[in-house]
Amino acid sequence: MNNIHAVIITIGDELLIGQTIDTNSAWIAQQLNAQGIDVVRRVAVGDTKHAITTALDEEWQKASLIILTGGLGPTSDDITKPLLCDYFGGKLVVNEDVLTHLKEIFSRRNRPMLERNLKQAEVPDNCSVLFNKMGTAPGMWFEKNGKVIISLPGVPFEMKHIMEEVALPRIKGHFSTRNAIVHKTIFTAGEGESYLAEKIADIEIALPANIKLAYLPDSGFVKLRLTGHGPDANRLEVEVIAEQQKLIERLSSIIIATEDLPLEKILGDLAKQMQVTFGLAESCTGGYIGHFITQVPGGSAYFKGSIVSYDNEVKQNVLGVSKDTIEQKGAVSEETVIEMATGALRLLNVDYALSVSGVLGPDGGTDRVKVGTVWMAVADKNRVITKVHNFFYDRERNKEMAAKMAMLLLWKFMTGKA
Amino acid sequence: MNNIHAVIITIGDELLIGQTIDTNSAWIAQQLNAQGIDVVRRVAVGDTKHAITTALDEEWQKASLIILTGGLGPTSDDITKPLLCDYFGGKLVVNEDVLTHLKEIFSRRNRPMLERNLKQAEVPDNCSVLFNKMGTAPGMWFEKNGKVIISLPGVPFEMKHIMEEVALPRIKGHFSTRNAIVHKTIFTAGEGESYLAEKIADIEIALPANIKLAYLPDSGFVKLRLTGHGPDANRLEVEVIAEQQKLIERLSSIIIATEDLPLEKILGDLAKQMQVTFGLAESCTGGYIGHFITQVPGGSAYFKGSIVSYDNEVKQNVLGVSKDTIEQKGAVSEETVIEMATGALRLLNVDYALSVSGVLGPDGGTDRVKVGTVWMAVADKNRVITKVHNFFYDRERNKEMAAKMAMLLLWKFMTGKA
Repeated sequence: MNNIHAVIITIGDELLIGQTIDTNSAWIAQQLNAQGIDVVRRVAVGDTKHAITTALDEEWQKASLIILTGGLGPTSDDITKPLLCDYFGGKLVVNEDVLTHLKEIFSRRNRPMLERNLKQAEVPDNCSVLFNKMGTAPGMWFEKNGKVIISLPGVPFEMKHIMEEVALPRIKGHFSTRNAIVHKTIFTAGEGESYLAEKIADIEIALPANIKLAYLPDSGFVKLRLTGHGPDANRLEVEVIAEQQKLIERLSSIIIATEDLPLEKILGDLAKQMQVTFGLAESCTGGYIGHFITQVPGGSAYFKGSIVSYDNEVKQNVLGVSKDTIEQKGAVSEETVIEMATGALRLLNVDYALSVSGVLGPDGGTDRVKVGTVWMAVADKNRVITKVHNFFYDRERNKEMAAKMAMLLLWKFMTGKA
Repeated sequence: MNNIHAVIITIGDELLIGQTIDTNSAWIAQQLNAQGIDVVRRVAVGDTKHAITTALDEEWQKASLIILTGGLGPTSDDITKPLLCDYFGGKLVVNEDVLTHLKEIFSRRNRPMLERNLKQAEVPDNCSVLFNKMGTAPGMWFEKNGKVIISLPGVPFEMKHIMEEVALPRIKGHFSTRNAIVHKTIFTAGEGESYLAEKIADIEIALPANIKLAYLPDSGFVKLRLTGHGPDANRLEVEVIAEQQKLIERLSSIIIATEDLPLEKILGDLAKQMQVTFGLAESCTGGYIGHFITQVPGGSAYFKGSIVSYDNEVKQNVLGVSKDTIEQKGAVSEETVIEMATGALRLLNVDYALSVSGVLGPDGGTDRVKVGTVWMAVADKNRVITKVHNFFYDRERNKEMAAKMAMLLLWKFMTGKA
């Protein structure tokens, strides 16, 4: 009663020299998991025939489904298509549907169609085409001995489109997976993974054999993920939820969500439910908090905006922070973030305002305000709270921590926990 | 005269179910490349003994250096350390330096040290410890038959710290790489990779055997990367630069940089060089452009801030967009972005102001303004330019495209190209 095993192979030198971060694999893994298919390995290889062939030979043994991405473009470093054609003993032929689609794309863009683009209409005669409405490189589906190899373009939105529209429904049909996978996550803030592990040790030890617990620490938060495998999806769901419930009861004081949602979505859902609005006054985070908040569709119901006052002049002229405060207390101080928050509350006409000011590094630290110092405040019409953090990471991570800890502070204020 | 080959193995179920995006591998690959070491494969496996052992057995054949990340935490899903200890036939012993360091960390945090934390001071007696100043899990260096296996924690800033401070210098000493790798990148905007490939076909064909060209399309831009391998670093540098120069001459009209820099850095460097300031008025991008700009250290020399006016009330009350314009032309219109830009120019007291307003989707489209429509404007004291884009991706990508195309418009305005 094993699950279907899948392997993801990503192709491209850019993945091996660190020029590109692979986001495709994570997305594909999520989609396959939702269909009860386990991704057992991910492999990234370069744009050479030897590397790709070796990966196919090896992974072929380990999985029933192989998904390849990349190497399907029109330039000479894109070698996946002829290679797969050879690998399965086929030959390239023009596909009329793909050709028509390509002609449309180039005519819409008012571009002449080049020889190399015409070549994109050629597909191996031993595959079936996974039509790519969003781009010029068609996806391909090969089958051999009941196993399936799918080749997709590496451009994320083209890959996603083909997966959603064509490949996933077909995968579902092909592999009548009798096994289900259920993930349940608990999102905690403020305690380390060792502390959590101690606190729930007895629950973890008593977990049934088909349910596994994982700790995922991330930027001041720890997600606890329960993963269950079983033949009956409904029954498994009940089983995993029962275990999740034990963890929820044990850890209630530090839980901020019982789903795997991003913090900005948790915050947005809370604001919607409370029917309130909020706004921001950002300095060192530079708009990052606003970016997070506006990743969630429908945020205009509760998010009005952010005054990114990177320069002290903007803190004074736009937010109304007093010149004296900045001169006497400094731009990174409790007093300044209080005035930033109350300024934003008034200017943006919101129910809650969150402000952040800090020194992220590597430069800009002083004896009084060291690199990594970040002050934050939340205000409503009746009260203001503040908090200071001293981060000790690099600039990028200090910024991420500042943004996330600030959103957490706002969440705590709004839920009455701070 | 082959380069040293390295493989990166990342460990953790979170990588296989798509809960975490692997950023470690790209960073490690960059560092190794800079030392003349080629990463030939990257493999991600789950938290099981079988999966990790299989990966070690297989990759051991393919590389002289294996870098493992992950699975070193204090919880029961972290199995890398005992596994490596067994794999190389050693036994776990307490390391006094690590123990002292752990005690300091816990006393600083005012936390009791748990049995599971004490275990983190145990290391295999057949490895040498790569000290982890930033966390509780030590890195490990194993050697066998001249090959090296390095195990590092998966938390990015801890991994980076150990690599920079301890592992990389030691790698450099161990592998006296006689081979050099040189990458040179050209950053182009506005043309597709097929067009570029046609335009430079003769240069590409005439490249010497030791220099390879790759096309990296990304969000409306294409990076062209030349990679050279050779025994003499200085001579190779000259050779690759000579080829890069041919590409630069051929493509001069669409080049925005001849280094692999992010757009925000290119923009910042330009502003610094021109000794000017700029600011933003963002709507649909929600602060994302400000976030990009402030990723660059030292940005306060030229970036004053951003007014994120997500709500129309904020566009009116803060930026001074007229109510009539919004009611008659709409919040996503040429007229509105012009007023946003001129408003920001005045309010933020900057030399250049960039504004963006659009509908990113999935909802919010109308007959007049379809999802994906994004208006943008750049203003200085003398003139205003505008541009409209019609993106057709998902929300996240539409936002990224909007932010990047807006930064490109500002760059073009500032360089007199628009």
